[in-house]
Formats: sequence, C-alpha cells, structure tokens
Amino acid sequence: MLAGRPDGPPRLEDFALEEGPIPEPGAGEVLMRTLWLSLDPYLRGRMGSSASHSSSTAPVPLGGVMEGGTVSQVVSSNDGGLASGDLVVSAAGWQEYAVAPAASLRRIDARGLPASTALGVLGMPGLTAYAGLHVIGRPAAGETVVVAAATGTVGSLVGQLARIAGARAVGIAGGQRKSAWLRECAIFDAVVDHRSPDFVERLADATPDGIDVYFENVGGHVWQAVWPRLNRHARVPVCGIASAYNASVADVSGDVAGLMSGLVTRSITLQGFVFRDHEQLRPQFEADVGRWVNEGRIAYHEDVVEGLANAPAAFLGMLAGEHVGKRLVRVAHEATARPRRASRGSRSQPPSGHHSGSSRGRPA
Amino acid sequence: MLAGRPDGPPRLEDFALEEGPIPEPGAGEVLMRTLWLSLDPYLRGRMGSSASHSSSTAPVPLGGVMEGGTVSQVVSSNDGGLASGDLVVSAAGWQEYAVAPAASLRRIDARGLPASTALGVLGMPGLTAYAGLHVIGRPAAGETVVVAAATGTVGSLVGQLARIAGARAVGIAGGQRKSAWLRECAIFDAVVDHRSPDFVERLADATPDGIDVYFENVGGHVWQAVWPRLNRHARVPVCGIASAYNASVADVSGDVAGLMSGLVTRSITLQGFVFRDHEQLRPQFEADVGRWVNEGRIAYHEDVVEGLANAPAAFLGMLAGEHVGKRLVRVAHEATARPRRASRGSRSQPPSGHHSGSSRGRPA
Repeated sequence: MLAGRPDGPPRLEDFALEEGPIPEPGAGEVLMRTLWLSLDPYLRGRMGSSASHSSSTAPVPLGGVMEGGTVSQVVSSNDGGLASGDLVVSAAGWQEYAVAPAASLRRIDARGLPASTALGVLGMPGLTAYAGLHVIGRPAAGETVVVAAATGTVGSLVGQLARIAGARAVGIAGGQRKSAWLRECAIFDAVVDHRSPDFVERLADATPDGIDVYFENVGGHVWQAVWPRLNRHARVPVCGIASAYNASVADVSGDVAGLMSGLVTRSITLQGFVFRDHEQLRPQFEADVGRWVNEGRIAYHEDVVEGLANAPAAFLGMLAGEHVGKRLVRVAHEATARPRRASRGSRSQPPSGHHSGSSRGRPA
Repeated sequence: MLAGRPDGPPRLEDFALEEGPIPEPGAGEVLMRTLWLSLDPYLRGRMGSSASHSSSTAPVPLGGVMEGGTVSQVVSSNDGGLASGDLVVSAAGWQEYAVAPAASLRRIDARGLPASTALGVLGMPGLTAYAGLHVIGRPAAGETVVVAAATGTVGSLVGQLARIAGARAVGIAGGQRKSAWLRECAIFDAVVDHRSPDFVERLADATPDGIDVYFENVGGHVWQAVWPRLNRHARVPVCGIASAYNASVADVSGDVAGLMSGLVTRSITLQGFVFRDHEQLRPQFEADVGRWVNEGRIAYHEDVVEGLANAPAAFLGMLAGEHVGKRLVRVAHEATARPRRASRGSRSQPPSGHHSGSSRGRPA
C-alpha cells in the first residue's frame, strides 16, 4: 500500500505491506493471481506530492494499493471470454490477488516468448519504443539515432529498431556494466557513458555527422549535451523525463526561449507522446518485434526480483538506475504448466533470489 | 549600411546612409532597382551581437549593406531569361540599386495583386503561415486555433486560413487599434489583447474548449498563458520568437523540464520550421491564397514607409510593434506603367509620406 507521499526520491517507509481476504469476483468479473509486476519510472508520478506535475491524473490515495501493470493468471471467471488458467495483462497493482471486469483485460499473445515479455519488449515499453521511433523519429538509412537510458526496455529496443531500419544507433548509458551489455548484446554502433567526465566530447566523437533522431527519456545533462548536436530537421520523440520524476533532482534546466529559437533555426520537432496514442499499431508491433526477437535480431533483458515484499526496494533501486533492462517482480509462479515452445528469446528462470537473465548474454 | 552591433534593441546610430556608384552587371547578371524593401523581425538577428543566437548564419559585416528581401525591377540584363522592366523578388537589401545573378532571382507572379504582395501575403510570410498551419497545425473543423502577433502578415493569414479550414480562430494582439482591425477586417472569431491586465482570464474566456493549434511566433508572457490551455494532441508550429530577438527583453523564461513533462502528459508537438522547408508547397500556396484574396476571403494589410532613408526608424518601430500588417519601405516607384488589373486586393498608393492601406478597411 502507499503509506506516504515522498517530497523527493521515495523511501521504503512510503510503502506498507498489508494482508486481507482474497476478493470475490462479481458478474462479468474475474479473480486473478498476479504472476509478474512491472516496475516503471512513471509510478513515481503516481505517488503524488512534489512530482505530481509529471502525472496528468490524481495520484494513488494514501492507504491505497500501489498501481502497476501485471501479467496475471485467471483463477476463477464469471465471464465467458476468459477461463481459469488464462494469462492476461492487467493493471492489478502491487498485490497478490485482484478482481477486475473481464472487459478491462487483454489476453496475452506472447508469440512463443515468456509471458513476462508482455510487460516489456512486447508490452507497453515495447510499443512506446516502436511507435516513437517509427511514427515520430522516422529514421532514414544512414541517419544517426541517439537514445538515452539505452539499457532500459524502451531504450534498447529503440536502438535495435533503428539498426534494423538501417540507421546508426548510439546509446547513452550510465556505468561500465550497462555499456558492456549494449556493446556486446544489443549491439549498438556506439555507446557513451554519461557519467564519464568527458561525456560531451565522447558524445561528439560518437556522432560525427550530428544527431537526426534523439529519443528523449531522461532530460538533464544528457539533454544539454545532445541539444547542440541536433541536425536540421531533427526529430525528438519525448516519452518521459526520468530525472524530472524526482523533483528534488534539479539537474534539468535551461531556458525555453533558447529552446524555441533553436527549434526554428534548425527546424527541429519535439513531440511528446504516450503509447496509448498509438494503440492502432499494436498488431503490427507485436508481429514485427515478436518475429525479430525469435530471429535473434532483437535482444532484451529482464531484471527479476523475487517476491512482492521486495517490490519497494526494487522500485527505489530502479529509480536510482541500478537495473539493466526491464525490472520485474515475480509475485507468483504460473499455476499450471502450459506448453511453452523453447525459443531463443526464452529467459532462464532460477527458482528464487534476485537474479537477472537475458535473451542474448548477460552483463559483465 | 550596418554601422554598429546593438547589445539589445537596435538604435538609429546602428545604421548609416552612404552613396556610391551604381554597379555594372557582369555576365549572366542583372542590374535591378529596388522598388519595395521588406522589414522583418529576423533582420534583428542578422545584426549580430547579443541576439546572434537567433540566427544560424554569420551576421551582416560591419559596414556592409543591411540584408532584406526586396521587390526589384530589372534595369539592364545580361541574361536571356530576364528583360528590362521585369519585376523580381530578390535579396537586394537596403540599397537603391543592386546587381545579382539572374539565376538567384524569382520573377513575380502577383496574380493580379500589387507587386508588393510578393513580400507579404504572397511571399515569405504568406508561405510561412500556409505551410505552418497546413503541414504542422492541421486544424480540423471545429478545433480552436490561436495565433499571436495576429495583425502581422503571418498571424493574420494564419487566422484567416484557419477559418477557411472550418476552425475557430482566436487572435492575440497588442492594443485597441490592432484588435479592431482583427475583429472588423480579418474577422477572427475572438481577439484578446495581451496588454490587458486580465489577459490570462480573457484568453480562457476566448478558448472555452482549450487550444488545439497554437501558432507560436512571440514567446514571452503570451506563451506562458497559452501553455496551460493546450489540449491533448495539440500542435504548436514554431516560426519565430519575436521577443527573443531582443535579448535584453528577459520576458521569455520557464524551465525546460516542465515543458518536456507537459509535452508527454498531453502528447503535444512543438515543431520549429522556416518557409524554406516547404518550398514545394509554393505553387499550391500561391494559387490558394491568390484566389482567396481575389475572392475577398482573405484580407491583408500593408504599412508603407516612404524612402530608404526612413528604413532604420521604420525597422525600430516595427520591432517595437507599432505597425499593423506587413511593414514595407517604398524605395522607388515602378519605372514603366505595366498593365495592372484592378482587383479587390489592390492597395491605394498615396504618393508620399508614412501611410498605410488595406485590402479590407483600415484600422481605427
């Protein structure tokens, strides 16, 4: 449950674990067990307080269940469209069991990949990357695409999709471990460490022809370094400003007048979006990305924390950038063994503990 | 000539009048006499110094001829494509005679309108309005389009094109005289005076359904008032930030992080552009706008100052916002009487003095 509204970075005491009876589904509803809980930066905004500007809707009430996307398994159903054992994507939040109208749920088609990918490379972050790059970024062959938070699910997919489109992919990440994964597994053309003291110079070296598409999802000093390198007619899909989620981090600044003047003199487009704007692309997105993962052309990485009780610490760690790839909490194992085709995209699943797996190697 | 680099608003002493021999055209060149000189805000950027950020190229050298678009008449030609007496659009600058390669000139097709319109409603400002509204703004019928500097050539055309597209046009202007022209001649749906002490409330009253397209060309407190009223999926063509041309005017501010967050939560697009990006639209633009002016569906206004010696004062006044419509300097009268069809768009041309005329009434 949400127990406090942080005035900056969230703390463990902002969360509380409570027990209660398992709810009963009403007419047209299903009872689900949560298998996988997705941890995402936008959840900071849902906690309210100083960062409330980053969320357009009311925050989670104090004492309410924290929100979050889940992969859940139907336990019992009062709706003809879903049956016990079915796997669905839900917004069940940070809890082991939840009831929801069947009409609000989407049955998973994981295309031979683990069900957890419906929260990552085949889910909301995947569609964010796919739509932002193809609808807004539109890289031409030979153009340079730069993405920050490049080891995140969105960022790593943006870079790999850019390469499939024939563009040059440059990833920005923080630290040796993340940079190594990008170079060796996701195979970006160049990787720049934003913690490096000569970050600005290294970014210039990595983008000798300037930047045509910058996938903006972090803000701060990364944005400041990218901005002067944007080419004429550059496109900047803006899908979230991670550093702004913690309002106490005052590293995002700059003057709007200078920004506006730059937009005009270089004919630059800044376009904010959320994946919901592009729901109509989902079938094509699932087909393309599912195929490319199965063909080994796209690597993804899951960073799994075991047990709902560990969700708060895992969330705080994610906001601090300690993860590589998609951070998930495994709340429960799937109840019934379903036939699952072995594939290149499968992830090893050790039985317990904090671990991580990747479809194509693991970080050093 | 440019005589000084202003450190804020330009002054009269930043300009000097000099005399010299009329140049001789070389092979493939023509000698032209300047008839009309266009005064535009971007010229402030071409003067250099503190506002140099608003121009992407090197400023005019000290002692050099000030730049500026002109309608010129060919005096003698060493090129088969142009003959003495032809009217062309040129970048001849602030001088009575100039030589240029014939290939750099565009012969005017004024479609029955006065040749001076090639610098205004049928020229660069017109194409800026047309392309920005139709390529970036794309207003649907019933949507609300807001434009600032609405009595300028760009702004007044944006509003009128929006109405032709079935949208609601709201103009922002400064002062009673300009507002009256918008209401009575250009026929906007609503006009808001940004100098009014309750400007923010009046803008809200004038945009009860929010703002779908904001044509950004002024920045400052107007932008601050518009920003919170932008609807989801709003489009913001950005074609120039007039208040930023004078760097000493520090009224454009705001934090980039808040801007970026707003772009995401409301899926807003900010797109900088210049008319050159949309040169391929020129034939359609000339056909549409020429027809609509002739049909009386589009009003335009010219604010004419007589004589090159008065150009510096006219330019300073324009930066201060004293004009309505397109500010032009008449440098010389057309040498040979050409057949000109009388049309609704014709402008009365008194022989001398500072005057103004309009195709549809004149300001109170």
